[in-house]
Amino acid sequence: MELGLPGGPGPAEPGPRLRGLRGEDRAASASSVSQAEAEAGRRAPSVAAVLPAGGSGERMGVPTPKQFCPILERPLISYTLQALERVCWIKDIVVAVTGENMEVMKDIIQRYQHKHISLVEAGVTRHRSIFNALKALAEDQPNSKLAKPEVVIIHDAVRPFVEEGVLLEVVIAAKEHGAAGAIRPLVSTVISPSVDGCLDYSLERARHRASEMPQAFLFDVIYEAYQQVEIYLKIISLTWSELENSPFLGKAKCSDYDLEFGTECLQLALKYCHTKAKLVEGSPDLWKVTYKRDLYAAESIIKERISQQICIVMDAKEDEEHLGHCLEEMLRKELNVHFLDCKSVPFGQKMEHLMQIRELAKEVKKRNILLCGLLIYYPQDKQRLQESLRQGAAIIATLIKERNAGLVGQLLIA
Amino acid sequence: MELGLPGGPGPAEPGPRLRGLRGEDRAASASSVSQAEAEAGRRAPSVAAVLPAGGSGERMGVPTPKQFCPILERPLISYTLQALERVCWIKDIVVAVTGENMEVMKDIIQRYQHKHISLVEAGVTRHRSIFNALKALAEDQPNSKLAKPEVVIIHDAVRPFVEEGVLLEVVIAAKEHGAAGAIRPLVSTVISPSVDGCLDYSLERARHRASEMPQAFLFDVIYEAYQQVEIYLKIISLTWSELENSPFLGKAKCSDYDLEFGTECLQLALKYCHTKAKLVEGSPDLWKVTYKRDLYAAESIIKERISQQICIVMDAKEDEEHLGHCLEEMLRKELNVHFLDCKSVPFGQKMEHLMQIRELAKEVKKRNILLCGLLIYYPQDKQRLQESLRQGAAIIATLIKERNAGLVGQLLIA
Repeated sequence: MELGLPGGPGPAEPGPRLRGLRGEDRAASASSVSQAEAEAGRRAPSVAAVLPAGGSGERMGVPTPKQFCPILERPLISYTLQALERVCWIKDIVVAVTGENMEVMKDIIQRYQHKHISLVEAGVTRHRSIFNALKALAEDQPNSKLAKPEVVIIHDAVRPFVEEGVLLEVVIAAKEHGAAGAIRPLVSTVISPSVDGCLDYSLERARHRASEMPQAFLFDVIYEAYQQVEIYLKIISLTWSELENSPFLGKAKCSDYDLEFGTECLQLALKYCHTKAKLVEGSPDLWKVTYKRDLYAAESIIKERISQQICIVMDAKEDEEHLGHCLEEMLRKELNVHFLDCKSVPFGQKMEHLMQIRELAKEVKKRNILLCGLLIYYPQDKQRLQESLRQGAAIIATLIKERNAGLVGQLLIA
Repeated sequence: MELGLPGGPGPAEPGPRLRGLRGEDRAASASSVSQAEAEAGRRAPSVAAVLPAGGSGERMGVPTPKQFCPILERPLISYTLQALERVCWIKDIVVAVTGENMEVMKDIIQRYQHKHISLVEAGVTRHRSIFNALKALAEDQPNSKLAKPEVVIIHDAVRPFVEEGVLLEVVIAAKEHGAAGAIRPLVSTVISPSVDGCLDYSLERARHRASEMPQAFLFDVIYEAYQQVEIYLKIISLTWSELENSPFLGKAKCSDYDLEFGTECLQLALKYCHTKAKLVEGSPDLWKVTYKRDLYAAESIIKERISQQICIVMDAKEDEEHLGHCLEEMLRKELNVHFLDCKSVPFGQKMEHLMQIRELAKEVKKRNILLCGLLIYYPQDKQRLQESLRQGAAIIATLIKERNAGLVGQLLIA
């Protein structure tokens, strides 16, 4: 999908920052400026994405950092990368990982054939990781194969279900406003405790929102904000006498809090570049995998998304072929899947033939197809046949919903 | 577990509100007062629970209100009731449901044999539902079988994993402070949008908390707060001329916002009774089932909790009995379950005997035991035997983790 084409036209009036970035606010006649403005509004910005993935996942209660936790044998971060790769207008994806996970990450990229990924070393905080990734994108870095983008998306490695729609929305809004981020309604009331652990005040839920990801920024806005952080960093590493003579003195506006405890990039853009981020309503899918229960939820959602196609292959006489369609009818009520086909293939009567299912299952599993055999009892009595079919449908529904590779090649009986 | 006994002694110095409730601040000698105080502190308060369950579950994106959504065929609210019923010191549970769901709720109570439940009709908002439940508990209600408790717990129907520990904590804290509620760290930064949909300010995440459930109150505190709401309700149903002569005038401190949009009981206690709630750190389990993904997570957690016992019944010759223990060893690595036993029972060689598994499985399913058959290939070659056992262990692990009733009675092959 092209940015600025139908479905997401650029803003009619790009903000001054956008013009500034493009160098289009230089001396020119009034009419040519407005023409250039209109063109700049329509032109697709170059976009890169930054994915801080240096977290330890301590809230998950498991030793593996949550971004590397396996879901259906594949690490969570790989799903997130897949979601970003699907978007053809994101040119580069810079992932910040800790030194100790660098090899793990390289393996993931190779095994799942991720493209356009660059790795940088994560910092000790989320902000430092993001800044490292931004530095890799900045043009003035030597030996960098990356080009400085006009707009940079910042996303979380642990939000695998991000859709192209919301990415496009934040990019367009960032192009116009300088910064943009997805928000969601609050699920719980937010309160402030007093020092003695009692309720001090509670916030009006309707007037507040949860700040989620993705966020997007004009590259120069967010890079400038982080450079302020770096200036501060340099100052605090100086002695006091050095500080008095330092050229950085007076430039620092960044508090310890921003550096070490803050996680909100929108806040940095506001505080250091006076850029008020546009807020974009996101879908519930944007949630962050934080606790163990979120891994369970993510697994179920991924299973649901993968298992969307079913093909029934039958061994039935000609006059029994309608049974496949009966099964299909029963399954349609339970499952939201697409029925590819219902074929009748003679298997032969011998057990050896049935055991071939296991070999075939092993083979097709490599292509992520889970194959099971199902023997449906076929009595003359119509009511008992219905019962058999119902049980068959229940077994198929179970297999599809659970999608567990441990059961492939089994011959089940209804 | 007894309240006030080891594990949760009452507060050493009960607050004045507690004494007032018990009528122990009447004229008495100084020494007998402090004796009474000490006794009141140790004595277990009478406790009831209120469960507002009138919500429509619109955020779930499904037609059934979320509290009635089935998880492993059982409605969510039934798990929550079970969690409260397990706590022997909660005497009554009052559930507020809408008129249209009254019969559904009665069915659930009967089918899952819930005890100590009283039903009241829900109001149009969460606060109105809670107030209806509190009225049913108040002593001055005619025809009520319920007794006014000293402390009332307010919980959500959609938080099924509440543990006795946190219930005890909020009750003890409510006895001392008048009000108490569970809190959790914020997962996302909270921001405030300006009217044009841009970032106005973001809150310091470390200084704020999410207010969760359960909460507990001295009954008289929360009832007084809701009575203020009722006074306001009466006022707004009067005409202006009626209002001028109304005895309620001047008593109302409650705004429309509190009535219609507020959901925070701690806030009502603070605003109308000047009672500062004690905040208690809760576990991640307290989360609220809000979106469809939360149903998935709840299902996985319930499966994990149910499937904690496994019994392997084998048909093996004497010299093969160690195989059961090999399987057990392999499974221990993957599963956090308790192995009940590993028995060897001769099944006989005939297929009819094996088919009996299906009949037996149907029978034991009624007791919530899921039975499957597994035929493990037993080659002489040690390496191939290990492979068979590994596959057998993988199939058992799958069956236990997925715990899907659709596969009971199947004969699987490793």
